[in-house]
Amino acid sequence: MKHIKLGIFIFLLSVGTISAQVPNGYNLWLNYSQKPNSSIIKEYQKVSTSVYFQNESDVLNVSREELKRGLKGMLGVDVLFSDAISKSNTLIIATKNNLHQDIQNTLETNYKSIGDEGFIIKSIQFKGKQIIVISANQDVGILYGVFRFLRLLQMETDLSTIHIIDSPKLDLRMLNHWDNLDRTVERGYAGFSLWNWQKLPDFIDQRYIDYARANASIGINGTVLNNVNASALILTPMYLEKVAALANVFRPYGIKVYLTARFSAPIEIGGLDTADPLNSEVQNWWNTMASNIYKAIPDFGGFLVKANSEGQPGPQNYNRTHVDGANMLAKALQPHNGVVIWRSFVYSEHDVTDRAKQAYSEFVPFDGKFMDNVLVQSKNGPIDFQPREPFHPMFGAMPNTNLMMEFQITQEYLGFSTHLVFLPKLFEEVLKADTYAQGKGTTVAKVIDGSITKPKLTGIAGVSNIGNDINWTGHPFAQANWYGFGRLAWNPHLSSETIADEWLRATYCNNSKFIEPVKNMMLNSREAVVNYMNPLGLHHLFDTNHHYGPGPWVSNLSRPEWNPTYYHKADENGIGFNRSSTGSNAVEQYANEVAHVFNTVETCPEDYLLWFHHVPWDYKLKNGESLWNGLALKYQEGVNQVSQMIATWNAVKPYVSEAEYKEVDMLLNIQLKEAKWWKDASLLYFQTFSKQPFPKDIVKPEKSLEYYKSLKFPFAPGIRPHWD
Amino acid sequence: MKHIKLGIFIFLLSVGTISAQVPNGYNLWLNYSQKPNSSIIKEYQKVSTSVYFQNESDVLNVSREELKRGLKGMLGVDVLFSDAISKSNTLIIATKNNLHQDIQNTLETNYKSIGDEGFIIKSIQFKGKQIIVISANQDVGILYGVFRFLRLLQMETDLSTIHIIDSPKLDLRMLNHWDNLDRTVERGYAGFSLWNWQKLPDFIDQRYIDYARANASIGINGTVLNNVNASALILTPMYLEKVAALANVFRPYGIKVYLTARFSAPIEIGGLDTADPLNSEVQNWWNTMASNIYKAIPDFGGFLVKANSEGQPGPQNYNRTHVDGANMLAKALQPHNGVVIWRSFVYSEHDVTDRAKQAYSEFVPFDGKFMDNVLVQSKNGPIDFQPREPFHPMFGAMPNTNLMMEFQITQEYLGFSTHLVFLPKLFEEVLKADTYAQGKGTTVAKVIDGSITKPKLTGIAGVSNIGNDINWTGHPFAQANWYGFGRLAWNPHLSSETIADEWLRATYCNNSKFIEPVKNMMLNSREAVVNYMNPLGLHHLFDTNHHYGPGPWVSNLSRPEWNPTYYHKADENGIGFNRSSTGSNAVEQYANEVAHVFNTVETCPEDYLLWFHHVPWDYKLKNGESLWNGLALKYQEGVNQVSQMIATWNAVKPYVSEAEYKEVDMLLNIQLKEAKWWKDASLLYFQTFSKQPFPKDIVKPEKSLEYYKSLKFPFAPGIRPHWD
Repeated sequence: MKHIKLGIFIFLLSVGTISAQVPNGYNLWLNYSQKPNSSIIKEYQKVSTSVYFQNESDVLNVSREELKRGLKGMLGVDVLFSDAISKSNTLIIATKNNLHQDIQNTLETNYKSIGDEGFIIKSIQFKGKQIIVISANQDVGILYGVFRFLRLLQMETDLSTIHIIDSPKLDLRMLNHWDNLDRTVERGYAGFSLWNWQKLPDFIDQRYIDYARANASIGINGTVLNNVNASALILTPMYLEKVAALANVFRPYGIKVYLTARFSAPIEIGGLDTADPLNSEVQNWWNTMASNIYKAIPDFGGFLVKANSEGQPGPQNYNRTHVDGANMLAKALQPHNGVVIWRSFVYSEHDVTDRAKQAYSEFVPFDGKFMDNVLVQSKNGPIDFQPREPFHPMFGAMPNTNLMMEFQITQEYLGFSTHLVFLPKLFEEVLKADTYAQGKGTTVAKVIDGSITKPKLTGIAGVSNIGNDINWTGHPFAQANWYGFGRLAWNPHLSSETIADEWLRATYCNNSKFIEPVKNMMLNSREAVVNYMNPLGLHHLFDTNHHYGPGPWVSNLSRPEWNPTYYHKADENGIGFNRSSTGSNAVEQYANEVAHVFNTVETCPEDYLLWFHHVPWDYKLKNGESLWNGLALKYQEGVNQVSQMIATWNAVKPYVSEAEYKEVDMLLNIQLKEAKWWKDASLLYFQTFSKQPFPKDIVKPEKSLEYYKSLKFPFAPGIRPHWD
Repeated sequence: MKHIKLGIFIFLLSVGTISAQVPNGYNLWLNYSQKPNSSIIKEYQKVSTSVYFQNESDVLNVSREELKRGLKGMLGVDVLFSDAISKSNTLIIATKNNLHQDIQNTLETNYKSIGDEGFIIKSIQFKGKQIIVISANQDVGILYGVFRFLRLLQMETDLSTIHIIDSPKLDLRMLNHWDNLDRTVERGYAGFSLWNWQKLPDFIDQRYIDYARANASIGINGTVLNNVNASALILTPMYLEKVAALANVFRPYGIKVYLTARFSAPIEIGGLDTADPLNSEVQNWWNTMASNIYKAIPDFGGFLVKANSEGQPGPQNYNRTHVDGANMLAKALQPHNGVVIWRSFVYSEHDVTDRAKQAYSEFVPFDGKFMDNVLVQSKNGPIDFQPREPFHPMFGAMPNTNLMMEFQITQEYLGFSTHLVFLPKLFEEVLKADTYAQGKGTTVAKVIDGSITKPKLTGIAGVSNIGNDINWTGHPFAQANWYGFGRLAWNPHLSSETIADEWLRATYCNNSKFIEPVKNMMLNSREAVVNYMNPLGLHHLFDTNHHYGPGPWVSNLSRPEWNPTYYHKADENGIGFNRSSTGSNAVEQYANEVAHVFNTVETCPEDYLLWFHHVPWDYKLKNGESLWNGLALKYQEGVNQVSQMIATWNAVKPYVSEAEYKEVDMLLNIQLKEAKWWKDASLLYFQTFSKQPFPKDIVKPEKSLEYYKSLKFPFAPGIRPHWD
């Protein structure tokens, strides 16, 4: 105990003398400033005494620099590199063909399983001595191996018997930045866009490099720089020169750059009078555009497209199909090995059917019709990134299509960057869900990793929560959502608990008195936000446009499916959206085994009860409470859970710096205030239908329903930019 | 030499181990990480061995914390504070009444001259021992004294005979933030607004505290949080609660908060149907508004108002005068000791006279009619923050008015945050200009410091260049403009060379091999930008709206005085705006001695030649060149000066970190690119009138005039927000 306190004391001092005033969080989970405990640091120093590091590419150079930085920070040693492999080496880092034949033979079988991006970290015998080898088939595997090795040190892992053979389970592991050219970020809550278009291409901000380091450390290999609600100007020469400058920074870190393509660009910047995908002038325009892009960026990734969705232009403007549009772009990119990522997030104001059914209805009939270099990117649920949704029925329903997952890391519907919500818990719930598409055990994870249907390409995208705040994500714990998304993109079968444990140790310390309680706080945080915002399957109750705070009463928007009242359908009889066979029958889009369970009130999991059913206020829940009382108690439970989070954070105060403590404490208290706001506003509103009193354990609302209805937030962050 | 290199090497290492990845610049000139040289550090450590620091107010607490932080960083010692003044003390810090009587007597005469905000730093004999005393009449004087003391250490000043008696020469020393509620910053080039309105009032960003520390360290005592093109919403309860939270952070640092008041607020948020200043409902509305503000912020500073200027509402909408408007607000604030700062930056599309004359014409007749708690804030020149303007004729012309200076620190017309331009050189030129208003020697500095006319209130404002970029100002050297403005606000008689010297030593190091060349680079940088943008008195040749780059050809804007062609009036006969007695006669607004000099081509300084005169292309300049050749050579000289700046920065590379070197090097190369752009675009355009070839020393333009005319920058930073 004394030791621990002393350790922390020294740490604070040493920081204090150098950069007292720089706020925390810039270094993310690449925090190399904490020293491993005295027992294991000796082992690490021994391993670092003589390092051979193959050195003949940009990828290997940045990998070697990272190793130097990490060992310098954690062990306080300047690594000595040797020019050739020798018996004196304690750590050898090289791709297969550059290793000593003896070592190659030892690892022979491992190389087959790791592909181009995987790596081996292994303690082996070499010339009668135990050494560590980091190897891979390709340079990028070395990059990933080095970052993993450094995390092993951060986590104080015993290396003596280390034996890690790992490789990513998905091909495309991407961030989607909804960043506009004026540096506003749609649904961004961590400041403004990292991309300083004004100073590019000639000014390279250190942040671009550190952004790439952070992504490489978790295996992210692609980034879409601009908003899916796109400006065509990104495709003009002035901007492509700037994009190329960023691509040059990211290339050594194994990251490809992608752009969103506005479907009407041929009209807006091409001077054509149509964007019809079957028009040969339009096709030629895109072919030429593709060639020009690849001249500037030889490894350009491809286009992400939001078409015929929420007012964006698309092939349907010309009575063509999504397949016509996607394949037209795919043909333009194919000669350059580029891909088209086509979003399935579409719903029409002219379609009177349940919005939850529309993406499936529009896309599933096209299964098998998209070209091999097209991926269809579908959100995790059928509506829109709600605190909880059932998995999207498209997963499993398009076995002959490259189907890609879209998660939202930025907390559009989960409290912006003031609420502590550990999202890997949400992601895990979706990935582990069983679609039964190819029989029992066809989890969403197995659908997207291609292990069952073997698609040509697999992928996953996360809508970024990154901005120019010094700590990148606004909330320090939101860094864990960036980290966690990357880890699940690498391996969608990981548990959220493993991820929380890794992130906490890499970011803060290895002290179990800190790790255990904070890990529990993180793992419970997602259920808390569901409880105080949208319990029992409620969804889309957010106030208009900005989505900050509750607006269940909103019913005045031009399009019915934009109104919260469309989703909760509360009335005197009850509450909830009947999507069963007696209602919109959205359940039929799921495999029979799943549809059957969702279809009846009795068998439907209560987490999804009001998603699939309109339920009477006096319906008896499994816990014996009436629906009204149970609903109210869920809201209260959510508030209580946030109070518990505050208590937890106070208890671990001794293990973080004063600044780190205060920052999170202030944010948790805002979260508590807003959780109460959600509970009070929602219950007062629903009470006008249930006409029943609150059960006794409910804390009395602080204000009137009229007050909550009167709140306006004209300048809330992240709203759709005005130029659009 | 060896010593120096070693010193820097160690410094880099120690940073390297702790926060390798955090970009430079966050700590500004409060960089306490460099150790004073070995000879003097002993003296400093001796002084710090036993410190008495009076301790009974928030102001004194933050002062003591700053002393601790500074000494810890520079000397590596934890200061020992003693509870009472004793003979063992080596450093005593207290206000007059809290000092030992012997010390009071020693300093007695000094206290009279320093007022409420001044301080004394003096080496004196106390109980037979030489000690240092920092004292003042009020706590805020101690705050300023401690920051000065720390800078003395940063600059390795010998303390043994130290004797500093200093106090500010102006009452109001303010920053004006043109920050909008959506966090865009009008004319901001360092990211976005520091004020995170979404997370206020409950989340206090560490930046707010460090912003206050930086301002206190140079004596700034007021800040206007929001844009002069104001939204009335800042005056609603939701925002006033957030403003109060910032006021609480700034209060211990001696900084008062001010807001801009939109003149039509009584209509927009008050529900009235008029904002007529003579309407009693309107007057009552503002009286109530003032009372509410002071309930939340007892030391609220007051209102800054932009009225009847560039489309903003004002008293003239109701056929009332600026006096009517200003005094109406002044009456509302007077009971609370608040002030009204009324901007004189007005010009009317309906006024056909020379725009340069309009502010003077509108305001000078009102001299003596404004209430005592009104200040009239005038820009430094009669047009609009150009690279060079003659001083504004209002200075000296309103002896019976509280006349306040407005400088622009953000580089709207000086290359945004990519051009290295040391603005104190520009400020100094204005402040030292002789208005002759009360006879020879009536410099602008003496007009605004009130030493001649003794106004009730004096003040100076700088339009902030601060944003949420990690280094605060975008360009590392733009920090010197924030610093320099503050120092001149404290003492408008300081030389720009002194300021450059202080800033360089506090920010980088004391090595003369670094200081001397870099100081020269800074002192020459302002003339360079004048040369490559607007030489010989040319002005307002910037491209439409964004003011990024040249647009001398622009003539299509609705209002004549918005077009560059209005200002340069180039034709086959010559170029320049005739403001002499044969032209608009703007010269008559100056005192006779000045007007006389400006009025004739022969006596007019060539720096202002084309400002005051339309001059034939073949006019012979003092250097013997024709006007056309001389103009061309000035543009070329500006470009050459930037090349020289690059050479200088390369030469001092050994004295800064690799990251610091690279950052400035990238920016200087952008500056060179853009200097050439200015030269080429301007000369190609003016050549269409002069019809003469370029003199031989001119480097041939890289592109055609049509190319330069075709450039568009729809998303350039700092443009007027769309919501406005």
